[in-house]
Amino acid sequence: MSQTTSAVKLTEQQLARAAFTYLAEPGDPALGALLGICEPAEVLAAIKADMLPGTGPGCGDSPASRAALERALGRWRARLPGLPADEGIAGACRDGIRLICPGDAEWPGALDQLGQARPYALWLRGNTDLRVACVRSVSVVGSRAATAYGGHVAGEIAADLAERGWAIVSGGAYGIDAAAHRGALATSAITIAVLACGVDYPYPAGHADLFAAITAEGLVASEWPPGRHPARMRFLVRNRAIAALTCGTVIVEAGERSGALNTAQHAANLGKPLMAVPGPVTSAQSAGCHRIIREWGASCVTCAADIIELLSPLNAPDALAPGGGLEPASSPVSGPPGPDSLPSRDDLDPDSARVLDALPTRGGAGTSTIAVDAGVDLDTVLRCLGRLAGYGFIERGDSGWRLRKRG
Amino acid sequence: MSQTTSAVKLTEQQLARAAFTYLAEPGDPALGALLGICEPAEVLAAIKADMLPGTGPGCGDSPASRAALERALGRWRARLPGLPADEGIAGACRDGIRLICPGDAEWPGALDQLGQARPYALWLRGNTDLRVACVRSVSVVGSRAATAYGGHVAGEIAADLAERGWAIVSGGAYGIDAAAHRGALATSAITIAVLACGVDYPYPAGHADLFAAITAEGLVASEWPPGRHPARMRFLVRNRAIAALTCGTVIVEAGERSGALNTAQHAANLGKPLMAVPGPVTSAQSAGCHRIIREWGASCVTCAADIIELLSPLNAPDALAPGGGLEPASSPVSGPPGPDSLPSRDDLDPDSARVLDALPTRGGAGTSTIAVDAGVDLDTVLRCLGRLAGYGFIERGDSGWRLRKRG
Repeated sequence: MSQTTSAVKLTEQQLARAAFTYLAEPGDPALGALLGICEPAEVLAAIKADMLPGTGPGCGDSPASRAALERALGRWRARLPGLPADEGIAGACRDGIRLICPGDAEWPGALDQLGQARPYALWLRGNTDLRVACVRSVSVVGSRAATAYGGHVAGEIAADLAERGWAIVSGGAYGIDAAAHRGALATSAITIAVLACGVDYPYPAGHADLFAAITAEGLVASEWPPGRHPARMRFLVRNRAIAALTCGTVIVEAGERSGALNTAQHAANLGKPLMAVPGPVTSAQSAGCHRIIREWGASCVTCAADIIELLSPLNAPDALAPGGGLEPASSPVSGPPGPDSLPSRDDLDPDSARVLDALPTRGGAGTSTIAVDAGVDLDTVLRCLGRLAGYGFIERGDSGWRLRKRG
Repeated sequence: MSQTTSAVKLTEQQLARAAFTYLAEPGDPALGALLGICEPAEVLAAIKADMLPGTGPGCGDSPASRAALERALGRWRARLPGLPADEGIAGACRDGIRLICPGDAEWPGALDQLGQARPYALWLRGNTDLRVACVRSVSVVGSRAATAYGGHVAGEIAADLAERGWAIVSGGAYGIDAAAHRGALATSAITIAVLACGVDYPYPAGHADLFAAITAEGLVASEWPPGRHPARMRFLVRNRAIAALTCGTVIVEAGERSGALNTAQHAANLGKPLMAVPGPVTSAQSAGCHRIIREWGASCVTCAADIIELLSPLNAPDALAPGGGLEPASSPVSGPPGPDSLPSRDDLDPDSARVLDALPTRGGAGTSTIAVDAGVDLDTVLRCLGRLAGYGFIERGDSGWRLRKRG
């Protein structure tokens, strides 16, 4: 790896959030509660000073929650010796690694659906814009002990989804995850591996080349800082982020006790479309898929077209709005909107119409170019691009956003 | 075949209904409408006299429906030359063949759910009581062009269901139907083949031995008279009877255009639990199953236990009541009642408690013996036996109804 260090400048609040990725495990309810009432830098200062921040509502009000906070403080402080200095944190942003925080332009509003369990920050490796990629994204996850059938189907579905402009999000594991990433990579499309360890930590070791390929075409993302090793519980915590980042979750193969069912549960809890690919009833690796179809109401999907029908972002035009979620307005069991419900150009709101007009008739354009041409700010452009892509007016090509022939 | 002729005595109304099985195709809306307002013998006499019966409400009121009736009359009269004399109809009841009509003790009330499309009568071959067999029955149907996987799964599921006291109803065709019948036969359980031709007409010819085995252990049933050949449309008309007779329908394999989906549609229209067994998404023979799971809300079932859970007759205690349906109170998508919702002996209504007390503690007893011992009429016994079997108090063994250990 090159030793090039970029001149990264992090704000005080960003540095504090980065510090939390070192000091606390993601989803720590005590830290989530504190961040609900205090600024990150204030919380970090309190941890360093071994003092609990003020007793605001919902945090440390009762003796019991006060005691829980004190125990949490002990846990975080135990990791203080391993916390790099501010320069060290900024220095971790090298080799294509960067940090994004809530409030940043690239922060996916979808993650805010996790409430107090929202990631403190995300470490990313790769040049793809996470927020834009997640506007049309699907998590395709499943068993590590996949069968040849499962691997084949995961690869096919991921490749077909990717070809139609959907980013494939998965967990970078052996089996279904790897097949999904590889399917997307085969079409040179965006794929995102959300890891349960540092973005530079090659786990599993056999996937070092896969992660390099994913970094080149998409993103490797993590809530843990660079260098952090994976741990059993981290996979489960990580799964909520996979479910939250994407418009829906597809389980390709899962045994009765597969971790993929944990991701499925998170998707269901978040009210996102949950889908499962059936398989032979004689295969233990499909038993979990069949069970969530039967008992959890997961949709039975067999191909990319089935999935796209259920994920049609028509009903979530504000997916890219700051703080906006990606929840579909329709539940997974209700029917998809028919093709005749696609809006025409006349139905567009003024901002979307301006953004559409700003797209070049030939070739593609980047987000900031479009913003300048349309005369709207970057957030509005992102929101409108997501809406227009969802309506089928535009698509993202190699050279940026471009007009699309509507079927 | 032996030429033994039983001394069958049919009533005038039964003879008329038998005649309709010769003269009209089942489900003929004109005949259904007439039978809604006139006695069968009256309708038969009118057909023979080439006169339309009276213009009651709902039948022949408008010139249009009058014209339709006249066309129907022409169709039925065209077949009069082939109608046997009364002695001939009675004579068809030989070699184990018999006729049951609405109102007979053995007539399954479930068929009355078909309304005007109710069969005029049913020809049966075999000694099993159709009405009792249908109290706990499942149709297991599917593609003729079954895969090895489908045949294996259909046989396993049918055998497991049969072992737990469920009668397996199917269409006697090659592929899934045959596998289902054979699975039931392997456990010496009751299986019923509902044919689209006469019960003595070996179609498909390769199934002559199978039909003989089914006759020995269960029933071959048909709405068409002995000797009648099958026809394309007859299979579709037959399918409504398969769906109506049973507590629920399981599709094991079905291509996108499989006739099994027609049976599925009938089950759905009747509000009965519709279930489908998934398979590899790479198999065209499972495409229909996956589609009805996704689009029609069919339940995804993988084994007999899944099916029994959905069919638990707990919610349909009056399945055997005269004219009563077999509709489950819960829809296929709602959760099944948990094991703790099984009623205790104290929860039973007085009739069921009396019937339960009438069962011998060792060995089994026949329906009429139980009726005498319990001091209730036969209809009540049948209703209560169905309820008690559904609650798991009793089961049907080789020597009749017997007490069952509750799990």
